[in-house]
Amino acid sequence: MNIERFISQSEGVWRSMRSGHSLAFQQFEEVTSEIQIRSLPLEDVRVETLLDIYKEKNLLPISPFEIKWSSNSDWEEQNDSLISSGKSIMIPLPKSSSEGLMIRSLGYIEAQKALSHYSFLSDGTFLLSTQYDQTIAEERIWFASENVRFRASVIKTLGSGGIMQSSFASEVRQLSQSV
Amino acid sequence: MNIERFISQSEGVWRSMRSGHSLAFQQFEEVTSEIQIRSLPLEDVRVETLLDIYKEKNLLPISPFEIKWSSNSDWEEQNDSLISSGKSIMIPLPKSSSEGLMIRSLGYIEAQKALSHYSFLSDGTFLLSTQYDQTIAEERIWFASENVRFRASVIKTLGSGGIMQSSFASEVRQLSQSV
Repeated sequence: MNIERFISQSEGVWRSMRSGHSLAFQQFEEVTSEIQIRSLPLEDVRVETLLDIYKEKNLLPISPFEIKWSSNSDWEEQNDSLISSGKSIMIPLPKSSSEGLMIRSLGYIEAQKALSHYSFLSDGTFLLSTQYDQTIAEERIWFASENVRFRASVIKTLGSGGIMQSSFASEVRQLSQSV
Repeated sequence: MNIERFISQSEGVWRSMRSGHSLAFQQFEEVTSEIQIRSLPLEDVRVETLLDIYKEKNLLPISPFEIKWSSNSDWEEQNDSLISSGKSIMIPLPKSSSEGLMIRSLGYIEAQKALSHYSFLSDGTFLLSTQYDQTIAEERIWFASENVRFRASVIKTLGSGGIMQSSFASEVRQLSQSV
């Protein structure tokens, strides 16, 4: 597996079922989302702007892409579920075929840009680790088939390594481009 | 990672939060469990009985263990949640340090004994694949820290490879031995 193949396999519209586990409080969260992943040209002005910020990294960017999502959570009041949406631009900066850095315009748990580290396990599972001010987020994504992928994440506190919450998403590719 | 180390790390009592995703129907299930994992001696009569059945495999057994669980699901009537419990004996039959067979006295999705195949990914993630009459169950287990492990599973139909359901468990080691 390499980053170009992984992004190419991920392109499309996905219907996601995500479960969040709050480990200390034994609370479940249920979120359904529609997620769209699409490639961007390196000449996209937003890509160029991000690359300007991180240009000191001295690595060649490849296969930038955009993730858009629209989510519906059960964690608000029973009859008033929370709908949120957003998008993030991601730019891989490979160091080798199996690992590299990833620029993100928007972090997964904090709304700020971030520089993540990615790598691949022996079966092609994609690992992404992002350090924020107080926390580390680790995601792993693997394909169960061409049209089903899974995404597990964990959030750890930076100092103690304590684990605050985890989540798991089952994502099924949609044939209609409805985002 | 090898199977002895993996089992040794897994021994103890775990509090599990498990989410099930029914992909076709977009239904969530929430299950809380207490799980106890403990080593058994090779001389345990139940281990010897299972080994007699599978003796034709001609591999040397190692580190047998027992898993006991007591679970509470939200999938029954709203005010009448389903409590289930059970136990299974597992006997690894290593082929090499990174893979082998696993005898199970009770299957994960069907209540019959089964012979699974296990292996490890490059980061120590444990993979277990079990073929039943109609389905294949694939589990992957990895440790986020000494006392937190995650377990993701998927059930595929045997012919088409269609994916029926997935689940994800966050498991936190308990200090009191209360099962």
